[in-house]
Amino acid sequence: MTHSQSSLLTLVIAASAVALVFAVFLARWVLARSRGTPEMQKISNAIQQGAEAFLARQYKTIALLSVVVAVLLGVGYGFFRPVTAHDPVQNPRTFALYVTASFLLGALSSGVAGYIGMWVSIRSNIRVAAAAMTSLNDALQTALRGGAVSGLFTVAMSLLGVGGLFAALSAFPPVGVSPDEWAQRIPFLIVGYGFGASFVALFAQLGGGIYTKAADVGADLVGKVEAGIPEDDPRNPAVIADLVGDNVGDCAGRGADLFESTAAENIGAMILGVLLHQSFGINGILFPLVIMALGLICSIVGVMVVRTKEDEDPMKALNRGYYVTAALVTVAFFFAARTLLNPPGQPDVWWHFFVCGLIGIATSIAFVFITQYYTEYRYRPVLGIADASQTGPATNIIAGIAVGMESTVMPVITIGIAIIASYTLGRTSGLVNEAGQPIGGLFGTAVATMGMLGTAGYILAMDVFGPITDNAGGIVEMSRQPESVRDKTDRLDSVGNTTKALTKGYAIGSAALAAFLLFSAYLDEVRNYTGQTLNVDLSKPVVFVAALLGAMLVFWFSSLAMTAVRKAASSVITEVRRQFKERPGIMQGTEDPDYAACVDIVTVGALKAMVLPGALVVLFPIVVGLLFKHFGGPGEFMGAESVAALLMVGTIAGILMAGFLNNGGGAWDNAKKYIETGAYGGKRSEAHKAAVVGDTVGDPFKDTAGPSLHVLVKLLSTITLVLAPLFL
Amino acid sequence: MTHSQSSLLTLVIAASAVALVFAVFLARWVLARSRGTPEMQKISNAIQQGAEAFLARQYKTIALLSVVVAVLLGVGYGFFRPVTAHDPVQNPRTFALYVTASFLLGALSSGVAGYIGMWVSIRSNIRVAAAAMTSLNDALQTALRGGAVSGLFTVAMSLLGVGGLFAALSAFPPVGVSPDEWAQRIPFLIVGYGFGASFVALFAQLGGGIYTKAADVGADLVGKVEAGIPEDDPRNPAVIADLVGDNVGDCAGRGADLFESTAAENIGAMILGVLLHQSFGINGILFPLVIMALGLICSIVGVMVVRTKEDEDPMKALNRGYYVTAALVTVAFFFAARTLLNPPGQPDVWWHFFVCGLIGIATSIAFVFITQYYTEYRYRPVLGIADASQTGPATNIIAGIAVGMESTVMPVITIGIAIIASYTLGRTSGLVNEAGQPIGGLFGTAVATMGMLGTAGYILAMDVFGPITDNAGGIVEMSRQPESVRDKTDRLDSVGNTTKALTKGYAIGSAALAAFLLFSAYLDEVRNYTGQTLNVDLSKPVVFVAALLGAMLVFWFSSLAMTAVRKAASSVITEVRRQFKERPGIMQGTEDPDYAACVDIVTVGALKAMVLPGALVVLFPIVVGLLFKHFGGPGEFMGAESVAALLMVGTIAGILMAGFLNNGGGAWDNAKKYIETGAYGGKRSEAHKAAVVGDTVGDPFKDTAGPSLHVLVKLLSTITLVLAPLFL
Repeated sequence: MTHSQSSLLTLVIAASAVALVFAVFLARWVLARSRGTPEMQKISNAIQQGAEAFLARQYKTIALLSVVVAVLLGVGYGFFRPVTAHDPVQNPRTFALYVTASFLLGALSSGVAGYIGMWVSIRSNIRVAAAAMTSLNDALQTALRGGAVSGLFTVAMSLLGVGGLFAALSAFPPVGVSPDEWAQRIPFLIVGYGFGASFVALFAQLGGGIYTKAADVGADLVGKVEAGIPEDDPRNPAVIADLVGDNVGDCAGRGADLFESTAAENIGAMILGVLLHQSFGINGILFPLVIMALGLICSIVGVMVVRTKEDEDPMKALNRGYYVTAALVTVAFFFAARTLLNPPGQPDVWWHFFVCGLIGIATSIAFVFITQYYTEYRYRPVLGIADASQTGPATNIIAGIAVGMESTVMPVITIGIAIIASYTLGRTSGLVNEAGQPIGGLFGTAVATMGMLGTAGYILAMDVFGPITDNAGGIVEMSRQPESVRDKTDRLDSVGNTTKALTKGYAIGSAALAAFLLFSAYLDEVRNYTGQTLNVDLSKPVVFVAALLGAMLVFWFSSLAMTAVRKAASSVITEVRRQFKERPGIMQGTEDPDYAACVDIVTVGALKAMVLPGALVVLFPIVVGLLFKHFGGPGEFMGAESVAALLMVGTIAGILMAGFLNNGGGAWDNAKKYIETGAYGGKRSEAHKAAVVGDTVGDPFKDTAGPSLHVLVKLLSTITLVLAPLFL
Repeated sequence: MTHSQSSLLTLVIAASAVALVFAVFLARWVLARSRGTPEMQKISNAIQQGAEAFLARQYKTIALLSVVVAVLLGVGYGFFRPVTAHDPVQNPRTFALYVTASFLLGALSSGVAGYIGMWVSIRSNIRVAAAAMTSLNDALQTALRGGAVSGLFTVAMSLLGVGGLFAALSAFPPVGVSPDEWAQRIPFLIVGYGFGASFVALFAQLGGGIYTKAADVGADLVGKVEAGIPEDDPRNPAVIADLVGDNVGDCAGRGADLFESTAAENIGAMILGVLLHQSFGINGILFPLVIMALGLICSIVGVMVVRTKEDEDPMKALNRGYYVTAALVTVAFFFAARTLLNPPGQPDVWWHFFVCGLIGIATSIAFVFITQYYTEYRYRPVLGIADASQTGPATNIIAGIAVGMESTVMPVITIGIAIIASYTLGRTSGLVNEAGQPIGGLFGTAVATMGMLGTAGYILAMDVFGPITDNAGGIVEMSRQPESVRDKTDRLDSVGNTTKALTKGYAIGSAALAAFLLFSAYLDEVRNYTGQTLNVDLSKPVVFVAALLGAMLVFWFSSLAMTAVRKAASSVITEVRRQFKERPGIMQGTEDPDYAACVDIVTVGALKAMVLPGALVVLFPIVVGLLFKHFGGPGEFMGAESVAALLMVGTIAGILMAGFLNNGGGAWDNAKKYIETGAYGGKRSEAHKAAVVGDTVGDPFKDTAGPSLHVLVKLLSTITLVLAPLFL
C-alpha cells in the first residue's frame, strides 16, 4: 500500500468510525428520553413486536435467497467461466471467492443497515410521542436524531464496507503485481458488494413496501370507508399492522435502498477513477470515499444544529439543517478537489471537478424544490387535484395521474443539464490520454453524483424522521391524548410526509445521475475483457428490441408490485371484516381487537408477494443477455450490447415511472390533507371522500412501486456489472 | 417510366379506384336503408349538426396551422437551407416545392379521410338503429358496411396519394437523370406527404379525443352520478355532445390516424426498397404499394362475407370476416413476393420475404388475441378488476392500472420476436451488397410491417363499426325504443367496444413494427446526406440525455392530454348543472334541454385544449435537435444522432404508455359492463359505483391520450424524416 493510499483509507475509515460512535451517542440520547404513559408503551410494544417479527421472517427469506445466489455466483465464477487474460486475478477459485465474499458482505451490511433503521425507529416513535406532551422542539429533535442514527449508520456502514474491503484487499496483492497495479484492479473485484447490497435492498424495499401499503390500504378501506372510524382508531384491528408497516417499509426499506445507492455508486465512481490513474494516481480511485466520509461529518453537524420554536413551521428548521449540511459539503468539496484532483502542471483540473461537485449539490437542491412544488399544497399541482375532487373520485384520479406524469418534466431537464454540464466540464478539464484525447468527461459526471450523494446522511435522517413522526402520531391518537399533543404530532407528521417525498425525489435524482456512471462502469468492464469499446447502438434491431424489453420490465414490475399490495390488502380487509362481525364488542369499545392476527396476515402476504417481482428483476436481464448472446445474430458481443441497452432504457423508463408514481402519490396524499384543512367542505365532504380514494390509490404508487423502482434501476446496474463476463 | 414501373403503378391506382368505387357503392347501399322513426331522425339530425359544426371549426384551425407549417417548410427549404450535392434535386426552390406540395397534399388527404369517416358514420348510426328494429343481421351488416366505407376510403386515399405522387413525379425526371435513377430519389421527395398526414392526424385525434371524452366524462359525472339518470338519457343536456364525440373522436380521429400510418409506412418501406434497387429494381420500391392494393381488394371480400344469425355472438361474425381477409392477404402475399421479389439466380429470396409477410399477419392476429384477453370480461384481467371493485373505487383503480401495465408485456415480446425474426429472415435471404455483406435485414422488417398493414382496410371498418353502433344504441335509448331493440343494439355496442380496443392494439402493434422501418429510413436519409452511417450510441452522454428527453415527452404529452379532457369536462359539468338548476322542467321531462349549448362548449374547449399538446409534439424534437446540434459537444452530427435517440426511445415509451392507457381503459370499461350483467350486485350496487369511477378514469386513457400517442409516435418519425437535413 502506498503512503497516500493508506492515509486516505485511514481518513475514510476514521470518519466512518466517528460517525458510528456518534450514531451510538445519538441512540443513547434518544433512548434516555421518557417513554410516556403505560398506555403509550402498550401500543409501542405491539408495534415493536410486529416489526421485529416481520423483519425476522423477511430476513430469513432474503438470507435464503442470498445464499442461493452466492452459491450460483461462486460455482459459476469458480468452475464454469473460462479464465481470460483480463481477469483481475488469474486463479478462478480466488476470483470466485472475492466476488462471492463481497456479495455476501454487501448483502449482510445492507440487511444490518435496514435492521438498525427499524430498531431505532420503533424505539424513537414512543419517545417522540412522549416529548410532544411537553414541547414541539423536543419532539422534533428526538425524531430527527432518531432518524440520524439510522442515516449515519447506513452511510458509515456503506463506507466501511467499501473502504474496508479495499483496505483488506490492498494488503494482499498477488505475487508479481505491484501495489499500485493491484489497487487499480480492486474496484472490479468488489463489484459483488454493490450487487449484494442491491439484491437485499430490492427484497427489503419490496417486502416492506408491500407490507406497509397492504396494511394501510386495508385499514383505511374497512376502517375509514366502511366502518366510518378515524385513521389510527384503536378499534381498527389493522391499525397496529399499519404502524408496523411504516417501520418495516419506510425505515428498513429506504435504509437498504440508500445503503446500496451509496455503495454501488462509490464502486462505480472508483472504477471510473481507475481510468484516470495516470493523472490522479490512487487519489482518483479513493476520491469518492473521501467525499462520502467528509459528507458524513457535515451531516452530523447539520443534524445537531436543528432546533425549532413552538410556533415555527418545523419544515423550516429541517431545511436549515439541510442547507448547513449542503454548505459544509461544498467547502469539503473545495478542499478535497484541490488536494486530491490536482495533477502538477494542470491548474484547471481541480476547479473543473469542484464545479462538477457544485452541479451535483445544486441538482439535489433543485430536486428538493421540484418535489416540494409537485407535492405540497401551497402550489398549483396539488391544489388542482383538490379542486378536481369536487366532481368526484374519477376526476381526482385523472388529475393526480396528470400531475404525476407532468412531474417528470423538470427533473428530467435538470438531470439532462447536470449530465451534460458535468460531462463537458470534465472533458474540458485538461485531462488527456496518451493519444491526446480528453478523457475526464465521465469522471465529471461521477463527481457530480458524489456532490449529490455528499448530503446522503442528512437526507436519510430526514427520511426516517417521517415514519417516526407518523408512528408517534399513531401512538398519540390511539392512546387518546389531548388535542394539543395531537396537534403537535400532526404538524410533525405533515412535515414527515414532505421529507419522505423529498427523499424519494433525491433518491431518484441521484439514481438518474449515477445511472450514467454505472453504465460507464459496465462498458468499462466489457472493454477490460474484450479490449474493444462497446457502442450501444439502438439502430441495430436486436439492440432496439432489448431496449424495448428493458422499458417493458419497468411496466411489468410496477404492475406486479401494485397487484401484490392489492391482494395482500384484500386479505387484511377480509380479516378486519371478520373481526368486526364476530366480535361486535370491538366497535363498541368494550373489547380489544386481535391486532396480532392482522399483523400475521400481512406478514405472510407481503413475504409471499415479494418473491415474484423480485425474481423477475434478477432473472430478466440474465435471460435476455444469454438469449441475445446466443440468438442475437451476427455482430460481436451482441449479448453484452443488448444488456447495455436493456439497462439504459430500463433505467430511463424506471426513472420516469418512479417519478410519476412517487410524485403522483405524494400529491394525492396532500390534496386530501388540504381538503382536511377545511377546503371544499373539509372532512366528511364529498370532495374529501373523493380525495381519500386518490390517497389510497397513491399509497402503493408512492410507497411500494415507486421506491422499489429506485432499487430496480440500481440492481439492473449492479447485476450487469457483476455478470458482465457472462454475456460476452 | 419503365414498363414494369408503369404496370405496377397502374395496378396500384386501379385497385385504389376499385376500392373507392366500391366504397361509394357501399355508401349508397347504407344510405338507401330506412331512417326509422321521426323521433330517431330528430336525434340523429342533432348529432349530425354537432359533428359537422365541430369538424368545420376544427378543420379551420388545423388548416391554419398546416399553412403556417407549409410556409415555414417552403421558405426553409427554398431559401435558407444550403444546397448539398446529396439533395434529390439540385434546385432548392424545386426541392422546396416538392416537399411543401406533398406536405399540403398529405394534410389535405388526411383531412378528407377523417371527414369521410365522420360523414358516413353520422348517417349510418340512425340506419343501424332502424335496422335493429327488425333484425340483428341487418343492423350488423349496416354498421360494418358503414364502417367499411370509411375504411376503404382511408386506405385507398392513402394509396392513391402515395402512388399518385410517385406516378406524377415519375413523369418529370430532371434533365440528365435517368428514369430509373429518378425513381430511386422520389421516395425522399414525398416524405412530406407522410408528415402532412401525421400533422393533421395528430390534431384531429387530439381534438376529437378531447371532445369525445370531455363530453362523455361530463355527461356521466353529472348525469349518472349526480342526477342518477341512466346513460344516454334524453334529459341529460350533454347527451348529444357525447354522441357527437363518438363520431368526431373515434371516426374522424382514428381515420386520420390509420391514414397516416399507411402513408408514412409505405413511404418508409419504399425508402428501404431503394436500398435494394440492385436486386429488385423498381419492384422493391413499389412492393409496399402493391401489397396495400391487394389488401384493399381482400378487405372488400372480407367485409362482404360477414353475416350473423339472430342468436349468434356478433363478434364471431366479425372475426370470420377478419380471418377471411387475413387468409386472402396471405395468398396475395405469396404471389406478390414470388413475382416481384424474385431476382434471378437467388431462389431463396422470395420465400424468405413471404415468410416475413406471414410474420406480420401472425403478429396482427396475436395482437387481436392479446387485446381481447386484456379487455374482455371472459378473462382473468377484467374479472380481477370487477372483483376489486367490491372494496371500492380505490382498489378498482389500482387493479386497472396494474392490468394496463401488465398488458404491455405480451405485445412487447410479440413485437420483439417479429422484429428479430423478420430481420433475420431478410438478412439470410441471400441479398448482398457489392462487398458481399447481407443487406436484406431491414427490408425483412419492412415486409413484416406490410403483412401487418395488409388487413388495414378491414380493421378500420371494424373500428368505425364501434362508434356507429355506440351512436345507434344512443339513438335507440333516447327515442325510447322497446327492450328487444335495445337488447340488439346493446349487443352490437358491446362488440363495438371490443373492436375499438382491437384496432387500438393493432394500431400500436403496427406502429411498433413500423417504428423500426421509419428509424431506418431516417438513418438512411442521414447517410444519404453525410455519406456516413450514423450509429445511435446511447453510451454518449448527450445521446443518452436526448433519449431521456424522448421518453419524458411521452409522459408530458399524456399529462397534457388528460388535463385537457378534465378541464373541458369540468366546463360541461358546470353547464349541465346550470341547466338542471335554471330549468327544473328538464328533469321532469316536460322541457327539452339545450343540447346545442353543451355542444358549443365542448367544441370551443376541445379546440383550445388541443393546441398546447399538439404544438409540444411538433416543436420538441426540433428544439432538441437544434440545441444538441449546436451544444452537443464534440463528435460529428450530434444533432442528428440525438434526434434519432429521442425518436427511438420516445417511440419505446410511447408504445408502452399507449398500450398501458388503451388496455387499462378498455379493461375498466368492460369490468363495469361485467358488473352490469349482474355480478357483485349488478347495477346500482356499491361495486358498480366503484366500477363507474374506473370507467370514467379510463375514458381519457383509452380515447384521448392513448390513441393520440399512436400519432405522436408516427409524427416523431415523419417530422424527423422531413427535417433531417436541419439537424446535420
